[in-house]
Amino acid sequence: MKHLNKIAYIIVLCFLWQSSLHAQTIEKIAPGVWKVSFGTPEKFKPSEFKDAPALDAMKQLQDNEKPPFDLAEIKFKTIQRGCVAELTMDESEQIYGFGLQNNTFQQRGFRKEIRVNSWSTGNVGFSHAPVPFYVSTKGYGVLVNTSRYATFYCGTMRKATESVNIKEGGNASVASSTLDLYKPLEKPSNSMIIEVPFEKGMEIYVFEGPTTKEAIQRYNLYSGGGCMVPAWGLGVKYRGKGDYTDVKAEKLASYFRKNNMPCDMFGLEPGWHSVAYSCSFVWKPSLFPNPDRFIQRMDSMGFKLNLWEHAFTFPTSPLFDPLKDKSGDFSVWKGLVPDFVDPEARKIFGDYHEKTFINKGITAFKLDECDAADYKDAAAQWSFPEMSVFPSGIDGEQMHQLYGVLYQKTLLDVFNRQNKRTFFDVRSSQAFASPYPASLYSDMYDHREFVRMISNSGFSGLVWSPEIRETKSDADLIRRTQSGVLSAQLLFNSWYLNNPPWLQYDYEKNNRDEFLPNAKQLESQVRKLLELRMSLIPYLYSAFATYHFEGIPPFRALVVDFPNDSAVYKIDDEYLIGESLLAAPFIDGTSKRSVYFPAGTWYDFNTDQKYEGGKHYAIEMSLDQIPLFVKEGTILPLAKPIQYITPNTVFEITCHTYGNSCKPSTLFEDNSYTLDYQKDQFNKISLEWNGKKETVTKKGNYPGNSYNVVGWVKH
Amino acid sequence: MKHLNKIAYIIVLCFLWQSSLHAQTIEKIAPGVWKVSFGTPEKFKPSEFKDAPALDAMKQLQDNEKPPFDLAEIKFKTIQRGCVAELTMDESEQIYGFGLQNNTFQQRGFRKEIRVNSWSTGNVGFSHAPVPFYVSTKGYGVLVNTSRYATFYCGTMRKATESVNIKEGGNASVASSTLDLYKPLEKPSNSMIIEVPFEKGMEIYVFEGPTTKEAIQRYNLYSGGGCMVPAWGLGVKYRGKGDYTDVKAEKLASYFRKNNMPCDMFGLEPGWHSVAYSCSFVWKPSLFPNPDRFIQRMDSMGFKLNLWEHAFTFPTSPLFDPLKDKSGDFSVWKGLVPDFVDPEARKIFGDYHEKTFINKGITAFKLDECDAADYKDAAAQWSFPEMSVFPSGIDGEQMHQLYGVLYQKTLLDVFNRQNKRTFFDVRSSQAFASPYPASLYSDMYDHREFVRMISNSGFSGLVWSPEIRETKSDADLIRRTQSGVLSAQLLFNSWYLNNPPWLQYDYEKNNRDEFLPNAKQLESQVRKLLELRMSLIPYLYSAFATYHFEGIPPFRALVVDFPNDSAVYKIDDEYLIGESLLAAPFIDGTSKRSVYFPAGTWYDFNTDQKYEGGKHYAIEMSLDQIPLFVKEGTILPLAKPIQYITPNTVFEITCHTYGNSCKPSTLFEDNSYTLDYQKDQFNKISLEWNGKKETVTKKGNYPGNSYNVVGWVKH
Repeated sequence: MKHLNKIAYIIVLCFLWQSSLHAQTIEKIAPGVWKVSFGTPEKFKPSEFKDAPALDAMKQLQDNEKPPFDLAEIKFKTIQRGCVAELTMDESEQIYGFGLQNNTFQQRGFRKEIRVNSWSTGNVGFSHAPVPFYVSTKGYGVLVNTSRYATFYCGTMRKATESVNIKEGGNASVASSTLDLYKPLEKPSNSMIIEVPFEKGMEIYVFEGPTTKEAIQRYNLYSGGGCMVPAWGLGVKYRGKGDYTDVKAEKLASYFRKNNMPCDMFGLEPGWHSVAYSCSFVWKPSLFPNPDRFIQRMDSMGFKLNLWEHAFTFPTSPLFDPLKDKSGDFSVWKGLVPDFVDPEARKIFGDYHEKTFINKGITAFKLDECDAADYKDAAAQWSFPEMSVFPSGIDGEQMHQLYGVLYQKTLLDVFNRQNKRTFFDVRSSQAFASPYPASLYSDMYDHREFVRMISNSGFSGLVWSPEIRETKSDADLIRRTQSGVLSAQLLFNSWYLNNPPWLQYDYEKNNRDEFLPNAKQLESQVRKLLELRMSLIPYLYSAFATYHFEGIPPFRALVVDFPNDSAVYKIDDEYLIGESLLAAPFIDGTSKRSVYFPAGTWYDFNTDQKYEGGKHYAIEMSLDQIPLFVKEGTILPLAKPIQYITPNTVFEITCHTYGNSCKPSTLFEDNSYTLDYQKDQFNKISLEWNGKKETVTKKGNYPGNSYNVVGWVKH
Repeated sequence: MKHLNKIAYIIVLCFLWQSSLHAQTIEKIAPGVWKVSFGTPEKFKPSEFKDAPALDAMKQLQDNEKPPFDLAEIKFKTIQRGCVAELTMDESEQIYGFGLQNNTFQQRGFRKEIRVNSWSTGNVGFSHAPVPFYVSTKGYGVLVNTSRYATFYCGTMRKATESVNIKEGGNASVASSTLDLYKPLEKPSNSMIIEVPFEKGMEIYVFEGPTTKEAIQRYNLYSGGGCMVPAWGLGVKYRGKGDYTDVKAEKLASYFRKNNMPCDMFGLEPGWHSVAYSCSFVWKPSLFPNPDRFIQRMDSMGFKLNLWEHAFTFPTSPLFDPLKDKSGDFSVWKGLVPDFVDPEARKIFGDYHEKTFINKGITAFKLDECDAADYKDAAAQWSFPEMSVFPSGIDGEQMHQLYGVLYQKTLLDVFNRQNKRTFFDVRSSQAFASPYPASLYSDMYDHREFVRMISNSGFSGLVWSPEIRETKSDADLIRRTQSGVLSAQLLFNSWYLNNPPWLQYDYEKNNRDEFLPNAKQLESQVRKLLELRMSLIPYLYSAFATYHFEGIPPFRALVVDFPNDSAVYKIDDEYLIGESLLAAPFIDGTSKRSVYFPAGTWYDFNTDQKYEGGKHYAIEMSLDQIPLFVKEGTILPLAKPIQYITPNTVFEITCHTYGNSCKPSTLFEDNSYTLDYQKDQFNKISLEWNGKKETVTKKGNYPGNSYNVVGWVKH
């Protein structure tokens, strides 16, 4: 961070809290970003592994040149358990973030333990991707730069001293139901208390707004900018059954093509490994006798291949010996746990993947099991223990927190040096992960939670796929597919199904090849949804470019854009997509729901019916209608659906305008297979309609052509 | 522990583990009990607050004069997270204990985090009463003397070094169901790894057997011996609705007497406090205008009164000012958290209770909320945070673990000095709690788990009430009541019901005084069960005396008595009561179940049908039959049911003999209202029948008479 010295200044402050004298250091480390340090620094901080900040982009954001609150007012202390910080909130502040939370949305009033765990046991903050970062509606963000299981008491606890003067009140009425009894009896506290265990110091990054959205932008840009996914990563991904042979996979692939079901990516599940369920990283000859030929055949049908793996390296793997002395002291499923903190271990692992898979045409990986599962029943053996020791010196707790990010980094480094874009599936992530082109997924499967996770993902630089697996009804299949279409990655995970779920969603019948009586009708309904997804790719791709260059999350809760509208503070079942789409998924096969619209006028994507902002509406939609709304003043570029994307794809774009005049809209154009955008090899295509005239203007250095605007439709 | 010097010897050993040189100290601290110390001792160890060991009783146990395994083989190390110990188990060892576990029974293969929490979130070891103590079928017990959230990896994790030589295997077949995939792929490890966080040392107590039962006995005796409950504590307890006035409570009390429903104890729920739901410890004048008169009236009907409270002291309480400087730095429900580590705080709290309640005739308390509820949704405010600081220096985590025990100690000290026996309800307990006359209860309500908790309670010196509350069917009410009858405390908790559940178990109808059409029939069925309970009191009372004097838990899993019968290793839905009864509760209203009988011949208590040990039987019982079995060779003393117990109660005993000749049986006799048994003021009445002759022999110094043997019945 030497290049930041010029903007860094240091203030040393003395601090008195509970009779202890402590000093904290305040340093401005980037435009609108301050680092507050206290005590002995933590050794394995997330920042050690982060990308360089996108400083030029950060400079474009408004910068008040002063912190969003008085950083000297943060109180720190050390106790035997670790280090504690206390910040003060206003009465009215709402708090969001902490990564991929599935149970809660507005976090004030909760105790959040930011701990990686594949099951969100107990609604206490555990997550695949827990991020020690939160944003406030007051327009700032706070990141604790820790790889420990930090706990955030978000206004839950009151000091005893605050009680001294209470002389009346309490619950004078007599409760005789649990609900009454346990009604919160306290006025919520204004303290945000943060505990980092085992450390005698803490580093807090404070991100200025001045708005909530800008605080998030600053966090993403400081992380290195939002991820640039390949356009094909925004197409349809299908993961086939775990015991597929090459022949079966190819057969399914040709089913897609013959039936005009769009699909870009095909994923192989554990069975491709010669040994699983720890990993050999070697093809299983009985299922895949000729991997090169298989890859070539799939490629010829337009499928990118994605291989499932986790990092736990089985003794028969060629990676075992090289990693033997570069792994943790405990095994998982008999496999080594590579010490990805060590650049040498990352190199060994990455080089092997490059040589064996990436050079052969594998375009992506599914990085499984890099979250822990300590809090799920008997799953104690699904990960290394917290008291593990690794050669680099990191311990198991810290490694749990960072493993997802380090694993992504290990393989992404290879793609980056090859100037290839990829799009991972990944089970865990943490702080500063915004630049990683990876979509989180889960073994959990609650549709309502999945939608909440879309809303929450945008607060912390994460990308989330609410994957589609089993179901019990046509309606649930369609509604879940709609949510997939309206998410960052549309993923069908059929790892235990012989056939696509739309042909038969009953597990046993599916695997006996017994199809639903209305299989063809469902297939047709799903096809329409996949085609809609393909139509949306140019819009989504541009939204991801905005994520990269400006830090605005492509999928985000309404409160990000409307922090002053208190009606949206608890809305976690609607979210924004890109600049001007609003999604309000129907859950559990229902066809009715209430939708709140924020400021503006909104058009039903299906019918053009208009809704006024600031109100709730009871909305009913058939299964053929998608719960998507377009803001008045939008130019929505929709592509003619194609089956899959190639380097030569040119999208035929129809511009849909909503309202009498529109804001200009931008299409981002580049070689979406490479990282050439980093060398300014991209174009911005401005679509304009002022109510009278349609204009398409291309600016930039990229010589290619991905879009042809073929028409305009007025709504 | 000065009196132990004569038997103490010290061995200092040097130890090498993972390149660190460490010393551990081994000391024999009581007959068959060794203390292994490593590193810097923990400051607030459970042992600091324990009773003196029952050394004389311990000397009666067989003592090999050498530890059950080589204590020098325990490997210790410190890491940044704390301190780690590693013990080795045999392949075949089964592990039990860890306090009041509700989800699991045999603990080998599980990761157990011994953390107090009122909801057992995630099945990872959390419990109301987590005890860092386990016993092995190999015949020893291990206690970690810690008030930290210790984690026990019970053979779950394998060292990476153990994987190096694996060159074949793994899961060669391809899984395509989650079940197959996650089937434990590892051979279980033989390591018991224990992590104590935040401490740079560890103290481990090892209890010799040579049998599992003797290891448990030694633990209980070292704790001070099992609790002596008053005989009335074994009667029926009923907790009335939270908003009862004195008039309503008295009305219900007279319902019991008029309808001959046995009941000894009546509990008042939060409404009696002038302020709740933090506590004022002052009667609410609008509900109880004349507490003295109320106590007297209830006493005149033969009811002992038990008052609900928790320790969180509301600002308007007379206890607030005296405790203000002797409490933690955070409030709970606006109330102070008294620092019960400080003897002065305990004295203030105890003295107030003595003067205000105990001297006025209150015989017991229900000590609620002394467990934490951190892992239940939004319940972060239900307890003080782990990073709390208390004036004594203890922190919130340690206080969470010890609060239940310290709270019991605070009030028990008063009863002890008054030479009065009591029987608390309590929500939390921990190590060395065997001498506390307190029965745990829970907000959880799964009948199957409740029965498992009976089985588990006996491993760690705990007493457990599977309380009866709401239900949805006659059968469930009866089956739950049966389990209550066959537990340490028979407790109906009707804190939200206007009327007893057997008159109406529907919450809303009950509170509208609308009774079931078959209310009288159900009442009659319940009456029979309450009468059976009253009949069992002499047997149970003697079993508690055995608990006190010999350390044998009155309620315990089959494996305690039959550690060599592998068929019982997983049986947690049957348990032993006293010396020779076996209970096998019917769950969820069912009338059929499989029952396994260990060695011996067993008689159905209802029908005298015989079952041979070593086999499983499919058994069916009507709701009028209780799932209780008597071992052949038993003399079971049954009392003529009475309505309640007084200091003058004399039980009329009929001795039931099972089989052609019997082992002698003992009735314990003393003044069950006082602690005079500690001064040898008790009798043992030996009941004998050798197949020919019946003999009743009383020995001892107690001048009173509690039993008249009036008859013998041969089965």
